[in-house]
Amino acid sequence: MTEWPTFVEVVDVTPRDGLQDETGELTTEEKIQLIRDLRAAGVRRIEATSFVSPKWIPQLRDAEQVLAGLAECDNLIALVPNVRGFERALATVARELTFVVSASPRHQMDNLHMSLDASLANFQAIVQATEAGTVRLRGAISCAFGSPFHEEMIRPDEVAAIAKSLVHHGAAEVSLADTVGLGKPDFVRRVITAVQDAVPSTPLALHLHDRYGLALGNVVAALFCGVTTIESALGGLGGCPYAPDAPGNLNTEDLVRWFHLMGIETGIDLEMLGSVRKRLLGQLAQAETRQGELRT
Amino acid sequence: MTEWPTFVEVVDVTPRDGLQDETGELTTEEKIQLIRDLRAAGVRRIEATSFVSPKWIPQLRDAEQVLAGLAECDNLIALVPNVRGFERALATVARELTFVVSASPRHQMDNLHMSLDASLANFQAIVQATEAGTVRLRGAISCAFGSPFHEEMIRPDEVAAIAKSLVHHGAAEVSLADTVGLGKPDFVRRVITAVQDAVPSTPLALHLHDRYGLALGNVVAALFCGVTTIESALGGLGGCPYAPDAPGNLNTEDLVRWFHLMGIETGIDLEMLGSVRKRLLGQLAQAETRQGELRT
Repeated sequence: MTEWPTFVEVVDVTPRDGLQDETGELTTEEKIQLIRDLRAAGVRRIEATSFVSPKWIPQLRDAEQVLAGLAECDNLIALVPNVRGFERALATVARELTFVVSASPRHQMDNLHMSLDASLANFQAIVQATEAGTVRLRGAISCAFGSPFHEEMIRPDEVAAIAKSLVHHGAAEVSLADTVGLGKPDFVRRVITAVQDAVPSTPLALHLHDRYGLALGNVVAALFCGVTTIESALGGLGGCPYAPDAPGNLNTEDLVRWFHLMGIETGIDLEMLGSVRKRLLGQLAQAETRQGELRT
Repeated sequence: MTEWPTFVEVVDVTPRDGLQDETGELTTEEKIQLIRDLRAAGVRRIEATSFVSPKWIPQLRDAEQVLAGLAECDNLIALVPNVRGFERALATVARELTFVVSASPRHQMDNLHMSLDASLANFQAIVQATEAGTVRLRGAISCAFGSPFHEEMIRPDEVAAIAKSLVHHGAAEVSLADTVGLGKPDFVRRVITAVQDAVPSTPLALHLHDRYGLALGNVVAALFCGVTTIESALGGLGGCPYAPDAPGNLNTEDLVRWFHLMGIETGIDLEMLGSVRKRLLGQLAQAETRQGELRT
């Protein structure tokens, strides 16, 4: 059992995961302001957008424009699902790119429209096309703690094998995602331990969704394993449109409050975070009304 | 790290801890019914009452009468703070007696009106007066994870030393209580580990109060340490009148729901438990009104 941390890095994914499943769409300016506000509240790494096809996730169709408005930001992450997304992302200020695959074969096909092997080949091509020192590549594994499809069983050794491939190809960090909030503390520990054994010198992150408040238990399991980077979203927004019954992300405010109560620093101002959440939820409600009016 | 359990024993302490700090007082018949209902819902061990002086906790003044109405129950625990309480308890159906001391010197004096050494001498006298095979003696350590008094610091080695004394004198089980809900997962793990090192063959229980939802984190820490007996109360009632700012107990329904979600069995019917809680809260509200009328 590793030492309990004194500092944990909270990666806020609101602008990407938090917005991708909302019926209300923020304006580009609102998205830019959201990211600036998160930075001002002390969030050191922010997943700002996804370079996914607007055909699949129209909410993030303005990825380039959002990043163009944030030239001063050096802490932005963008998600890329394939080579095409990578090429779009390279032209922006995003300095970290999350390449995503899935531990669930069916979610892999539904969400990424190609097999795991094809995804890994994409990732290899991306690594080869990356000039050294320009961007940091992260490998994310969706459904690492449970599949939304009942017939599928996720196995720690298979998640570890995927992590090993990602790191072998060039991932500098691996993010393990509980895409559908099915993680249980002991299974989280087993998966993390298997991945740590497979890629011992690669830093890990945990991307959490929260079902019935169990995510805190998974956070505790991860901290006991020495994982000190956790991804969450304001207001518990978020969810993958291609993962049935996915609950929202773990709420960033809950997470930060827990850390502070546990004597773990985050560098984040909880009160400012509350104001950001409040404004965001107001804007989303307005956006929903606006779009409702457009449709009628 | 021990194996994750497949079964956890939930000890419900509602009739004792849950009622001792309420302004509304249930009737003796309501208390008896509450305990029968908890049994019917599948709770295998229930802390039924406390043989404390009615001068300090009038809500439990009918301890003898409550137990007299439960002759058929073989799973009842009663709390005893001293030799006098033990003598009262011996004459009842309670087959397990929890003798309580505190890891906080000030809480020890405020709650038990004697020093730790005097308490341990009381416990020794109790053990000597106990006929073999009649009752099982449990040792409980209040404030094991934090003191309500800012000037006091709880140390794992000191809690372990108290546990060792209790077991040395004859405790068959040690219950570690987070009386004021100050436990944090890593400290819980450190205290439990220290106690396990001191009394390796004694089963441990964890008595939890919940501040801001952190208790789940403490449960997870305890499970990772191999502790599989957790104490909680319906509706999150409870709190020690002699521990300033003590939050309610961990809610038994939350706890059972979490266990079931984590694939851990409890033998408890969650739906029945919900009905018991609903009726109890209704009765407490009525009792409060009744007593308000008596006072005016």
